Amino acid sequence: MSNEVNSRLERMSGMLKRRGFILPAFEIHGGAKGLYDFGPNGGRLKNRVNQLWLEHWTSLGNIVEISSPTITPYEVLEASGHVGEFSDFMTTCLSCQEVSRADTLLEQDHPNPDSLSSNELDTLLEKIQPPCPSCSTSEWSKVVAQNLMFNTTIGAGNSGRPGFLRPETAQGMFTSFTSLYRHFREKLPFGAVQVGKGYRNEISPRQGMIRLREFNMAELEYFIDPETDITHDFGQWDKLSFELLSEDNGRIKMTIREAVSKGIVRHPTVGYFMAMTHDFLVAVGINADKIRFRQHESKEMAHYATDCWDAEIEGSYGWIECVGIAHRGCYDLESHEKYTGKTLRARREFTIPQEIVIDGWTIDGSIAGPAFRSLAGKVKTAVEQLPLATDFPISLNIDEQIVSVESTHVKRLQKTETLTGEWFIPHVVEPAFGIDRIIWHVLDHAYTETTKQEDSYTMMKLSPNVVPIDYCVFPLFEKDGMGELAKTVNHKFNSKRGIVSSYDSSGSIGRRYARADEIGVPICVTIDHQSLEDNTVTVRERNTGTQTRVHIDEL
Amino acid sequence: MSNEVNSRLERMSGMLKRRGFILPAFEIHGGAKGLYDFGPNGGRLKNRVNQLWLEHWTSLGNIVEISSPTITPYEVLEASGHVGEFSDFMTTCLSCQEVSRADTLLEQDHPNPDSLSSNELDTLLEKIQPPCPSCSTSEWSKVVAQNLMFNTTIGAGNSGRPGFLRPETAQGMFTSFTSLYRHFREKLPFGAVQVGKGYRNEISPRQGMIRLREFNMAELEYFIDPETDITHDFGQWDKLSFELLSEDNGRIKMTIREAVSKGIVRHPTVGYFMAMTHDFLVAVGINADKIRFRQHESKEMAHYATDCWDAEIEGSYGWIECVGIAHRGCYDLESHEKYTGKTLRARREFTIPQEIVIDGWTIDGSIAGPAFRSLAGKVKTAVEQLPLATDFPISLNIDEQIVSVESTHVKRLQKTETLTGEWFIPHVVEPAFGIDRIIWHVLDHAYTETTKQEDSYTMMKLSPNVVPIDYCVFPLFEKDGMGELAKTVNHKFNSKRGIVSSYDSSGSIGRRYARADEIGVPICVTIDHQSLEDNTVTVRERNTGTQTRVHIDEL
Repeated sequence: MSNEVNSRLERMSGMLKRRGFILPAFEIHGGAKGLYDFGPNGGRLKNRVNQLWLEHWTSLGNIVEISSPTITPYEVLEASGHVGEFSDFMTTCLSCQEVSRADTLLEQDHPNPDSLSSNELDTLLEKIQPPCPSCSTSEWSKVVAQNLMFNTTIGAGNSGRPGFLRPETAQGMFTSFTSLYRHFREKLPFGAVQVGKGYRNEISPRQGMIRLREFNMAELEYFIDPETDITHDFGQWDKLSFELLSEDNGRIKMTIREAVSKGIVRHPTVGYFMAMTHDFLVAVGINADKIRFRQHESKEMAHYATDCWDAEIEGSYGWIECVGIAHRGCYDLESHEKYTGKTLRARREFTIPQEIVIDGWTIDGSIAGPAFRSLAGKVKTAVEQLPLATDFPISLNIDEQIVSVESTHVKRLQKTETLTGEWFIPHVVEPAFGIDRIIWHVLDHAYTETTKQEDSYTMMKLSPNVVPIDYCVFPLFEKDGMGELAKTVNHKFNSKRGIVSSYDSSGSIGRRYARADEIGVPICVTIDHQSLEDNTVTVRERNTGTQTRVHIDEL
Repeated sequence: MSNEVNSRLERMSGMLKRRGFILPAFEIHGGAKGLYDFGPNGGRLKNRVNQLWLEHWTSLGNIVEISSPTITPYEVLEASGHVGEFSDFMTTCLSCQEVSRADTLLEQDHPNPDSLSSNELDTLLEKIQPPCPSCSTSEWSKVVAQNLMFNTTIGAGNSGRPGFLRPETAQGMFTSFTSLYRHFREKLPFGAVQVGKGYRNEISPRQGMIRLREFNMAELEYFIDPETDITHDFGQWDKLSFELLSEDNGRIKMTIREAVSKGIVRHPTVGYFMAMTHDFLVAVGINADKIRFRQHESKEMAHYATDCWDAEIEGSYGWIECVGIAHRGCYDLESHEKYTGKTLRARREFTIPQEIVIDGWTIDGSIAGPAFRSLAGKVKTAVEQLPLATDFPISLNIDEQIVSVESTHVKRLQKTETLTGEWFIPHVVEPAFGIDRIIWHVLDHAYTETTKQEDSYTMMKLSPNVVPIDYCVFPLFEKDGMGELAKTVNHKFNSKRGIVSSYDSSGSIGRRYARADEIGVPICVTIDHQSLEDNTVTVRERNTGTQTRVHIDEL
């Protein structure tokens, strides 16, 4: 990071803290790394971003909002693969005992250290001897895999069972699949969104809001039938050139329609969600020139994924991944199905019913029934799966018991069946948004330093969609009834659904404008002596500074 | 609970689960006691309740929304008193090892078992021998205090430090006091709200949504100057008679103005928040006749509280506490101040500056400076606090060092100081809302069983403020362009900010109305052949069943 960028970052962080946008949490108690507060201005900004995000997706008509617990039983995250695989390699400084991520220590010395095995990391640590960020010595322990989930115990005493804080909101949508499928009257495609906390016990959090231990996520799980052609209307983005870093074609600029039709984006729904993501980011105030989409390399993707694009935003820390849009195949539902034995499937009706000719074996109930008694039903199922060429007797493992099926137990089964449809595991396309990172870039892009009468002057050019305060109302003085009238106007604004207005009577009007500009208030309204006579007020617009005289009833 | 109430409750719970309002979480993995999902209909309902709640308070103009982490370092909750005091007594069944709350086991046999000490509980358990809810035997271990917080570790390895999941959102407001005070330009009163998760590792969760391990809270911490008279405008509630169960007067009905002026409600802000709470509950659909306010008995309140009222709602489980409105004095800020040594105070300007006559001692810099060197400043502060009658030499403990102050080191200090104001710890009035319990009662009050053509018929008479779906749009048939027109109308509704519309073409119109009524959709719109000719549609209202013909443009 250049000195200039760094010093801007320091001034901005200071302002964000002072004005109550974002600030280190629990600071009076010494703080806690990787935990942040959204303060008196940040809290509302975050709420607005969340609500816009929800609206952005639910307005499509086949996407619903759900809310599931953050505390998650061990079994759920074992089924999802997080217990086994959600970990980083850590190493401990032998001098000061501070732990660090091994790959982070080697970032300067290897192009892709997070692809290394524990042995490779050990070898490289010994060779490079990177200094400890805490004490600068260079002796490191062997690396160990550290699971990144926060663990806890659900219940007390012997009734307690292990659990974790969820690493993502997505599992709530997968475990709710049955409920969602019923809600949408068993018709794909449909989706479910959830906005809420996710947790990742980072070994060494850094870069402020970029790598948090507790973060705000917003995820959509969109369930589709892989065998049904999906068409999306890309018309609204035909004039927009997307910056794509594609695995095979490198850096290119083209419309999303073209990228999908050329197979650069490998599934139309992935392309559609990329375009929708772009629109959302711009709506909350991200500079469109600082958005690009980077495709994961095949070896970088999870083994089950068929395509994955990150929306990256450029800001003070360079290009940062803020959204991931992944085609996850049937991995998630299949994992939970395997683990629980419960069916998580959708039905596909055939356009033309299929005739199936069956020629094999079934049991002869009159002989096999008395012979196998309570197991007869299961023996029947097993026998009907045997090929015609089976030689009897044959030994079958039924419910952990070995039963011998004789030729007298069975008879030939020949029939034709008509199938009108089949059950299958839906595929999932998942856009996953890191809300904190997006908010951080919203603030970074809005933060504007200028000068006014040779003094430095700060303005947050926030989108009106996300501003913490919509209006400021100033009485020129608090006397002669100007204060009362200003309070009435302020109250009128606050009574409107979704609007926040702030009354401010301290200092000169210029100072009040400056205070409002610093947190991005789009409109300031001043009540003066003339207002008392003709009910007009001065309306001043943040970005242009233009002032117009408006009647109170027209506000 | 009567059989009738119980069987209604069972039917309702079944419907709430089937239609995706609320359902046990992680059910495919066997579920987890005390954890619930808000499903495809419940998720949006909960969001609407939360947003209404925020708006209800922030529209007052001096209340802001903040958001702080759920993971909380040990120190914060030690300072707040939760580490020491947030516990229940549990006992373990010696036969099946299931743990139970000791007071719950003794509910039938003692009027107030949660007031008993561990010894008293042990004695009573031995005498009564209540049966284990799990295995029905009656042998219990000695009771042990079980802290109700979920614990976890922040960070990994030797860098890990203990933490908890927050038991309430309130601490985030207290630790943010400095930021709030600055935001409000150092002027009381002001408040901060937060909506989010709270956690309580219940020993034995029960009653569905009433006693959860992870719950949704909404709290306001309102900071006031205890020496400034506060007036509230009670005018809007002068026609409303509140049902109060007061500590001294028993069950009474009166306006909130009267209750405050008679001192039954002991602080006007507590009364104001009770009335605001009433309005909120009614706005989300709670039946006003099923709300009452119960005052805590003095011995039931926390030692620092001066008044506390619960808003109780009557439903299938009887009267349940859903909101607590407490005057907490200066307890919270004082606790954090003592623990951290940081100042959490507001300044009060005197209307008339106060003259303070000082007659005591200070140090004689020319002699004491060289004598005490780096400690001189602290010696000066200590000496200036000594009474005039002090005999020198005197030994003082300065920074763990004993210094001897001789008479040569000091000189008489006589002066008059003018104080324009003073710093004090603000008092706090806190309304704390249990969102899950409120939502549960919203559903309970809305659930209406009737019959239609001799069949049982279910309708959710939800307030339009909180319905999960605002409109359903039905094509009479999907042919002749009716399906397309219906989809256009549906899309038009969904494009409106804050509106959710659902397209439904399955089954007869009667069945579709029934499906919509069951989840409380207020308005259904049907597109038929006539719509294609004259652009009119049938608009049908849920509660009355009235149908009117309306032009599409007027929707």
